[in-house]
Amino acid sequence: MIEETSKQNIELRIQMASEAYQSLKKTTVKERAAFMNAVADRIEALGEELLTTAHTETSLPLARLTGEKARTAGQWRSYAKAVASGIYTESRIDLAQPEKQKSDIRKYNIGLGPVVVFGASNFPFAFSTAGGDTASAIGAGCPVIVKAHPAHPQTSQMMADVITDTVKEFGWPQGIFSHITGTSHEIGAFLTQHKDIHAVAFTGSFNGGKALFDAASRRENPIPVFAEMGSINPVFALQQLLENKAKALAKEYVTSLTLGVGQFCTNPGVFIARKGESLDTFISAVKNEIQEISPAPMLHKGIYESFKKHKSIAITQAGVEVIASTETEEGKGSAAVIKTNAQNFINNPVLSEEVFGPFGIIVTCENQGELIQISQKLKGQLTITLAATSDDIHENSELIDILKDKCGRLLFNGMPTGVEVVYGMQHGGPFPSTTDARFTSVGPDAVKRFVRPISFQNWPNEFLPEELKNENPLQINRMVDGEINSESLKLETV
Amino acid sequence: MIEETSKQNIELRIQMASEAYQSLKKTTVKERAAFMNAVADRIEALGEELLTTAHTETSLPLARLTGEKARTAGQWRSYAKAVASGIYTESRIDLAQPEKQKSDIRKYNIGLGPVVVFGASNFPFAFSTAGGDTASAIGAGCPVIVKAHPAHPQTSQMMADVITDTVKEFGWPQGIFSHITGTSHEIGAFLTQHKDIHAVAFTGSFNGGKALFDAASRRENPIPVFAEMGSINPVFALQQLLENKAKALAKEYVTSLTLGVGQFCTNPGVFIARKGESLDTFISAVKNEIQEISPAPMLHKGIYESFKKHKSIAITQAGVEVIASTETEEGKGSAAVIKTNAQNFINNPVLSEEVFGPFGIIVTCENQGELIQISQKLKGQLTITLAATSDDIHENSELIDILKDKCGRLLFNGMPTGVEVVYGMQHGGPFPSTTDARFTSVGPDAVKRFVRPISFQNWPNEFLPEELKNENPLQINRMVDGEINSESLKLETV
Repeated sequence: MIEETSKQNIELRIQMASEAYQSLKKTTVKERAAFMNAVADRIEALGEELLTTAHTETSLPLARLTGEKARTAGQWRSYAKAVASGIYTESRIDLAQPEKQKSDIRKYNIGLGPVVVFGASNFPFAFSTAGGDTASAIGAGCPVIVKAHPAHPQTSQMMADVITDTVKEFGWPQGIFSHITGTSHEIGAFLTQHKDIHAVAFTGSFNGGKALFDAASRRENPIPVFAEMGSINPVFALQQLLENKAKALAKEYVTSLTLGVGQFCTNPGVFIARKGESLDTFISAVKNEIQEISPAPMLHKGIYESFKKHKSIAITQAGVEVIASTETEEGKGSAAVIKTNAQNFINNPVLSEEVFGPFGIIVTCENQGELIQISQKLKGQLTITLAATSDDIHENSELIDILKDKCGRLLFNGMPTGVEVVYGMQHGGPFPSTTDARFTSVGPDAVKRFVRPISFQNWPNEFLPEELKNENPLQINRMVDGEINSESLKLETV
Repeated sequence: MIEETSKQNIELRIQMASEAYQSLKKTTVKERAAFMNAVADRIEALGEELLTTAHTETSLPLARLTGEKARTAGQWRSYAKAVASGIYTESRIDLAQPEKQKSDIRKYNIGLGPVVVFGASNFPFAFSTAGGDTASAIGAGCPVIVKAHPAHPQTSQMMADVITDTVKEFGWPQGIFSHITGTSHEIGAFLTQHKDIHAVAFTGSFNGGKALFDAASRRENPIPVFAEMGSINPVFALQQLLENKAKALAKEYVTSLTLGVGQFCTNPGVFIARKGESLDTFISAVKNEIQEISPAPMLHKGIYESFKKHKSIAITQAGVEVIASTETEEGKGSAAVIKTNAQNFINNPVLSEEVFGPFGIIVTCENQGELIQISQKLKGQLTITLAATSDDIHENSELIDILKDKCGRLLFNGMPTGVEVVYGMQHGGPFPSTTDARFTSVGPDAVKRFVRPISFQNWPNEFLPEELKNENPLQINRMVDGEINSESLKLETV
């Protein structure tokens, strides 16, 4: 039973967030980093209870949850380190040149203001209440209001308590973090349209993300929404690689497709290759591999029902052949892989829709031209994978040029599941995989979504933020007259 | 007489831009920088003819146009230098750690795709066909389609020829730059809604910018619009400063207000101060200063008519007193300053609307509370100016905290007109001054609007872009495993 936070209480929390923003905006990057590390400490200190609660609420195995918990603390730490380095302040100092009538102009990034984060169901720790969106917004200097995902309320509450306790420990205003619960869509619309909310972060379905984007764009003062809405993450298997290792690739593909009952945003839902003996070998191997997969409980009933429905819609399309499926078992996600030809895939948009769960489509192409045709028709994706040898890459430059325009992350072999939390990660991509391809929601660069620059012209040193003061008290890297350094400025006058 | 580019021709140019993007995306930052410097050379080489043409078309004085021409070439050069440094590629390399099962992940920024730029009327060089938007989009790696401002068609054509000639000189595909002319609003909507357009840059009126933003947000695949829509750029005169130098401030204010017949986005349209002797002195001085200003021709008939209309609307509002105005002369922008009290200003939204031209409002406050009230009610601004002493700043920290949330650039004395083209410049601000406060349209950072990251996972070195190759052939700064350096990587295996 999820408690619905009342409108009155939400209003109060937004007001508290606005007030807290005034404090947070005056913290330095070092202070926010210390806070973030303290949150990481507290997450790590949560014991068995967190894991068993999350396991009960999500059906995710304990081993996976143990890993996700470590990842979540790691996110707070790595984002903290990045924030502390000052990289996201992008501090720029252009010193006055009185002889050229040029002013002293200094710029750095501040937080946008209160941010609403919508927790996701498929990562109860890493993409939820205390997940990457919350960490990056706080790192940016923004108070956060989390709308908890209703599928794991107790897990969310435990994570919310961690942040609330850290706020208390630091003596910061309570409004820096709020936790809203409820199941109605109205809450999301209300939060997104509220005049004192300055940005929204979301991970979930296309319909959910797009509705928030639309609501935000239609406000009197539009605000940015970063919605990560998933994708079908195509795998293009090229000829030489397929000939070399069709069987091994089938194992790798099925493992990735069914990992975590297929409930990853980067699940490789489509496999595209040219017809022939190698593809036949691949398909036979997929059949065998799928038989090895036991149906497992999905995250929650809604996801299970949706999987069952969308799988059934896909399977019953014309020109589709089921090549492998596991026994169905009520309440569990049973894997299936279907096959269709390129023209059918291109002409039937239903087959390009994400089926969230362990479900794959193998698209068979008559020739190279059909691979190109498919790539041209593809919508924006989080990832695209090339199962290829170097020779394959050499011979498919046109295809690869097109695929670069369609995704945020391009893999050379391997599988897209497993989104590493590093600077180099782009977890984003052209619409409809996200609402803004210019940003990522994984890796420290996620902070960039929530900052904006402010310039100070001829501002007295004593009133500048620490990040921009002559002395460079935080010893961060800054660009001074076009050169990056961490020096303090010795100026004759202020 | 403006020629209307036909729909058919526009379609063709968009198709050419899409094709050219495939080439541009493969250029290195050094190659694009060389191109940009070549454009700067050609702009500088344009002689008297450019200046006299622009003077005839815009009525702007030759001296101003000479300066603006130098600024425009300077923009291309300084953006080129920044692009060449690799700063906007934000190259990140996270090396593989096989023992931790971590992949090699490398990320850099590429251009979004074809960008549409809407030229502005008030800077026929710097914010128009070959202005900062065009320079920053090409620097990002995006082909540009300029919709020329109809107020200075020949000037635009000369600038377009400069870019077209540079494209030829470099042997680059023609589609990298296109120049569309016409007067209908339909062209703007058509370009913004076209599926192959990936971003829009605009400088102009609120209505124009907001219409493009709405059209872009409502596309099937929304695209980013950076619209700089101007603002009223309030000046808050604080007590001590006003007491110290009311007369000098009046001279400075009137000079800025009437500079270029008031046709700057950063024109200080509102002056706010507490009632008293000092303000009376200021007002008397403003009266005198305004008498010294001769009416001058405005940019074009449309702007003149709009100025006349909006000035008249403002003057005829209740509770408004005209304190100074110059003789009116048909076709010329004659300056005026009105006065109203804080409550009237707060309660009548008409008085917060930008009157584009030499028109100012002095808002008189009864007390400090009214200054705070006004600051709270302010919409987003490009700039806010504090006319203040250090003591004033000390005593007005609440006010300044609020003002930081309302603008992109905060000045300590001086006037906001004169937007320096430096890294530290933020020419942007919260809505409605722009559609996205996270970006600037002046300074090299303007490039950031038009790039998106793409990650390469486990990609063979030979197929990586130059920016990410082990050898670091471009010798740019990159973040390698969290540390920024310009070293080449000595890896045992690829």
